[in-house]
Amino acid sequence: MRLRNVKNKDEIIDNCDKLIKNPKEQIGNWKKLFGNNNSIYIEIGMGKGNFIIENAARYPNINFIGIEKYSSVIARAIEKVSNNLPNLLLIRMDAIEIEEVFSNEISRIYLNFSDPWPKKRNAKRRLTSEIFLDKYENIFKDSREIIQKTDNRELFEYSIISLVKHEYKIEDISLDLHNSNIIDIIMTEYENKFVENNKIIYYLVAKK
Amino acid sequence: MRLRNVKNKDEIIDNCDKLIKNPKEQIGNWKKLFGNNNSIYIEIGMGKGNFIIENAARYPNINFIGIEKYSSVIARAIEKVSNNLPNLLLIRMDAIEIEEVFSNEISRIYLNFSDPWPKKRNAKRRLTSEIFLDKYENIFKDSREIIQKTDNRELFEYSIISLVKHEYKIEDISLDLHNSNIIDIIMTEYENKFVENNKIIYYLVAKK
Repeated sequence: MRLRNVKNKDEIIDNCDKLIKNPKEQIGNWKKLFGNNNSIYIEIGMGKGNFIIENAARYPNINFIGIEKYSSVIARAIEKVSNNLPNLLLIRMDAIEIEEVFSNEISRIYLNFSDPWPKKRNAKRRLTSEIFLDKYENIFKDSREIIQKTDNRELFEYSIISLVKHEYKIEDISLDLHNSNIIDIIMTEYENKFVENNKIIYYLVAKK
Repeated sequence: MRLRNVKNKDEIIDNCDKLIKNPKEQIGNWKKLFGNNNSIYIEIGMGKGNFIIENAARYPNINFIGIEKYSSVIARAIEKVSNNLPNLLLIRMDAIEIEEVFSNEISRIYLNFSDPWPKKRNAKRRLTSEIFLDKYENIFKDSREIIQKTDNRELFEYSIISLVKHEYKIEDISLDLHNSNIIDIIMTEYENKFVENNKIIYYLVAKK
């Protein structure tokens, strides 16, 4: 995503109750923070938040946590979040530290239009690399579910190989999501543009 | 493939030494038939044979068997086969009977542009259905390898899910074979046309 600097982004972040300031202190405690026993789904790289905010509004019996690395981007998401969504929290952090923030608490991970890190020497940074899949083992509760959407063919090919190697089964897959039978699609900011330009969106549901 | 009737097709088939007339009688005996210990690769649905003939010419230390159901089609393949290919045999049969023809003898199966059987009620007829994957268990020697190429998106999506469910790993995959880094591609008759028309070809290598 192109980063546009947001003025007062630090102030916006500081003043947002939904944004958990010291997420590492909450490890093991997320259920209490939501105040219920509902499943917790996270989106790593939520961008401006359309997808996770719409999910939280649509599924009040699921708890959602949106994770984003960049202050300027998360500030844009905060501007959209309504306080009427008690089932949504936000975290600003680098996904590499995810094991320090969650411990056997998460039921589903969404990876939407993640950075493809196209160069081979950066493959380990992809959010479906073995390094990340190992980390996710520790944050997942009992069953493991990863749902990925991307327009990047190479990232998607890589992800299929990597997930299956890591013992995931592919429950569902589409090699052209917006020309498939899969309905009830909640779109991201990116996706809107891609669909307008007739770009192919790849989609999979992996479970183990 | 559109079937064009070939005159004298029965005569062509009868006179071809490379075509094994009673393949079920050869179960367990294929190594002897080739007269060596080399690996045996089969193509189920070889069509007019371009792919398997070119493979046999290029890889003399591998034995190839082309399988095709329709007399008219296999007659066209026979017209192209040179007797200088001792590592190539042909069989006219329905793949449903494959367990009666091979027993722990095959190292690799090629599935090129197989019939997609698009209706759900016919899914079991797809060559990557659970029924067929179970049959292949009995024909494979030790390691199992299936290489699939298709232009049919739905068949490819189905195949990924089915192969992974059946404990195969995906060793390699391309969601656009002719715009990928994969080289050394031997094309089928179909593929030539598709590539000319800029159609996407999907490709995978599954192993277990």
